[in-house]
Amino acid sequence: MLNLFGSRRRPPQPSRSRPRGENVSRVGLAQLAPEPHRLYAHAAYLQLSLFETLSRAMVSSPSLSTKLALSWVANTVLDRHHALTDQLEREGQNPVEAMTPFAASIDAFHERAEGADWAEVLMSAYVVSGILDDCVVQLAEGLPGDYPEKVTELLGGNDVSTALAAILSNEIEATPPLASRLALWGRRLVGDTLLVARSIADIPQDTVADDERLEPVFTDLVADHTRRMDNLGLTA
Amino acid sequence: MLNLFGSRRRPPQPSRSRPRGENVSRVGLAQLAPEPHRLYAHAAYLQLSLFETLSRAMVSSPSLSTKLALSWVANTVLDRHHALTDQLEREGQNPVEAMTPFAASIDAFHERAEGADWAEVLMSAYVVSGILDDCVVQLAEGLPGDYPEKVTELLGGNDVSTALAAILSNEIEATPPLASRLALWGRRLVGDTLLVARSIADIPQDTVADDERLEPVFTDLVADHTRRMDNLGLTA
Repeated sequence: MLNLFGSRRRPPQPSRSRPRGENVSRVGLAQLAPEPHRLYAHAAYLQLSLFETLSRAMVSSPSLSTKLALSWVANTVLDRHHALTDQLEREGQNPVEAMTPFAASIDAFHERAEGADWAEVLMSAYVVSGILDDCVVQLAEGLPGDYPEKVTELLGGNDVSTALAAILSNEIEATPPLASRLALWGRRLVGDTLLVARSIADIPQDTVADDERLEPVFTDLVADHTRRMDNLGLTA
Repeated sequence: MLNLFGSRRRPPQPSRSRPRGENVSRVGLAQLAPEPHRLYAHAAYLQLSLFETLSRAMVSSPSLSTKLALSWVANTVLDRHHALTDQLEREGQNPVEAMTPFAASIDAFHERAEGADWAEVLMSAYVVSGILDDCVVQLAEGLPGDYPEKVTELLGGNDVSTALAAILSNEIEATPPLASRLALWGRRLVGDTLLVARSIADIPQDTVADDERLEPVFTDLVADHTRRMDNLGLTA
């Protein structure tokens, strides 16, 4: 049993002098790191799904300049996917076999999270990649050897987030009524996305029903999500 | 007026000792090379459209292993698109402005050429990329400086064709009745695709109505297309 779940009560919160309480949930997620190949495979499939979302957004782009901007984001995400599957292969894993266990549930999630139109599809990509890339990086901190550095290098940058935020900001500026609709859509996405984050973590069976004890683990993910929504001028 | 159109009659055909008459139409297309930036921009938009076709095929892939195989092809095509737009930028062109004149007609073409299901979408990518990449490479031979080498290096390889042929062959092997349907679909695509090839070439206005004189120019493109269909065991 993991320390984190050793008592029914949440551990005492750190004093406010610790900035944003960040280290607490960082440690929390690192303690929930799955076996490296599982994390790589799960992350690889997530990037693949994100790529599909982005390519769908590209096809329905309202302008060629937006399409080109998205094409760079899609390229980055596809490169990440391939870097992860390459690494799996180098370690003797078959990427297809390794990813298969995660495919159905992520596909179902993406179907629900897809959004009704172009702006919502883009918002989905922004919210989902933001939370889940963070999640994978934080989980990887619990892996041995140079895995933490490797995963951070691959998924820890904010190129994707920054590029998507720029496109979304332009759209919101051009069509102000979008703001409230996208804020609402963003809020609807968070719950489902955190369930995916939870499924990536290695959470012992007997704690599954006990959400209260897991909540603190996801505090940072939600805080960073809130910051990303702030960046768009939206309330999370 | 270009030499090629100097007389109403086709120039005398080379003797059969010249292999496949290849040099004749090679020279022909090279004589029709548009201004470099136009060719780059047109080629860049074609790669972007091809990428969209491939990403659509990825989303509807019947298996994860096919999806992964396609993801590599999509990545190659997107890299080609970006290499072309990068080159435009290095030469002081705005890629969006440069591509815009070609967008509407290529979009309309892709809509017609999309195919009814996954196998047809893939077949479209195979036929269209085969003919049009060839066309761009052959047109580029008429450009000055190191343009011919640059374009050949970028689009002259057969990675995309080979990868798509492998996926299509597997599908046809698994579902033999596909063969005749895909052969039929391939034949339907050729005419429209040659019209796009024609639109990439710089064909003087007064020859537009005179298809007969242009036909030989596209002989090689059709010969190579026939060879690619042969590779799949299909009749072109």
